[in-house]
Amino acid sequence: MGRSRDGGAVTIGFDADDTLWHNEDHFHDVEQEFAQAMTPWVSSEAALAMLTETERRNLKIFGYGVKGFTISMIETALELSGGEVPAGVLQELIEHGKALHTRPPRLLPDVEDVLDALSGRHHLLLVTKGDLHHQQGKVGESGLAVHFTHVAIVAEKDAPTYRRVLDREGVAPERFVMVGNSLRSDVLPVLEIGGTGVHIPYEFTWAHEVVEVPDAARASGRFHELASIADVPELVDRLAGVRRR
Amino acid sequence: MGRSRDGGAVTIGFDADDTLWHNEDHFHDVEQEFAQAMTPWVSSEAALAMLTETERRNLKIFGYGVKGFTISMIETALELSGGEVPAGVLQELIEHGKALHTRPPRLLPDVEDVLDALSGRHHLLLVTKGDLHHQQGKVGESGLAVHFTHVAIVAEKDAPTYRRVLDREGVAPERFVMVGNSLRSDVLPVLEIGGTGVHIPYEFTWAHEVVEVPDAARASGRFHELASIADVPELVDRLAGVRRR
Repeated sequence: MGRSRDGGAVTIGFDADDTLWHNEDHFHDVEQEFAQAMTPWVSSEAALAMLTETERRNLKIFGYGVKGFTISMIETALELSGGEVPAGVLQELIEHGKALHTRPPRLLPDVEDVLDALSGRHHLLLVTKGDLHHQQGKVGESGLAVHFTHVAIVAEKDAPTYRRVLDREGVAPERFVMVGNSLRSDVLPVLEIGGTGVHIPYEFTWAHEVVEVPDAARASGRFHELASIADVPELVDRLAGVRRR
Repeated sequence: MGRSRDGGAVTIGFDADDTLWHNEDHFHDVEQEFAQAMTPWVSSEAALAMLTETERRNLKIFGYGVKGFTISMIETALELSGGEVPAGVLQELIEHGKALHTRPPRLLPDVEDVLDALSGRHHLLLVTKGDLHHQQGKVGESGLAVHFTHVAIVAEKDAPTYRRVLDREGVAPERFVMVGNSLRSDVLPVLEIGGTGVHIPYEFTWAHEVVEVPDAARASGRFHELASIADVPELVDRLAGVRRR
């Protein structure tokens, strides 16, 4: 990353779900409840495998987000029970879907301090994919919006999308660092357009997001793995060529 | 609308659903199918009233869009049948929800010609609310994206949202004309921020969007009602102070 004229200021993009606040843990709990409710017909493992398969099939139609997940649960329950699933179970699945929407975001450790420290010296973007209404609601409830120059909620986090978001912000990919828990969505497409990708794994990873790190990514010198968001400021300083005294 | 230095160019915002392409007619068909399927338990009228009530209740949680509508249909069917609704009917409701997602947009008459004529002389924005994945898909499939400087997909079309969209485009509300079928979403909030609102009614209006035109809106001199999108170019010329020779 080359030095800039504005004292090492760069643009840092942050993913939201499972990077700034917990998300997948609640999905994981709901999936377990779903699997448990399906045991009259199939094993938990089989129920989860069928749900994942329905989700994959429906992703093209519904896109990302809780509402598509909720419909996929109902569809799978009807299918695997041969239509025998009681109405009460379906109503519970709908309630789980609503709870996934309405539970306030619980911030991950150090998030507030890190954003506070970085936003004074750099431009911060929030780049999140999924449901517009839901993501916008969570950003508002999180109280974190104040730290970001812009919040981009996008349908898919691929290379063309990142290019479009950075174009609109007038930011060159070489001056962009993206931080997130998903290699597939936060890191690889950013490396592809010439930016820097910082991977911070979360406890759970949705099956859809699981990928290997290609050797080329490691070889690029623009791929970094950190244990915690608390390590981001030091890395950014190092990348931007700022010496701390 | 004052004259501008760039030969009368203004920024024209277009709504999408029921302004550029048919939408509510398909919802209307699905609602009729839903009501028909509920007749073992309640009258069609009662079924539709309950569905509208469920939708209203769920709107805060789910936001706009087909997926929330689909879940609301399932929830209402379970409730009004006392859990007796057959699995096959629920599966059909899910299929209706998918069909609402996947049917390619059917353009309204004259849309293509009007956008083609206007985009040469003015800046066109697409401003649509609802589901990001679905709206983005329809914009792509419509083939109309090429006419627009920017496509803004927003969670709610209220005055702060329009202000934010125009700010980002560097457009003064006084130089902005919004065209759409919904008084509530396309016209009133735009009048509120000092812009011009053009209402083009569609055959069906979703219960949620039905409002009266306040006297103040008519008195503003910035409210216009047209029978067809084909009348927009002439109105815009008149508003922008361009004389056709």
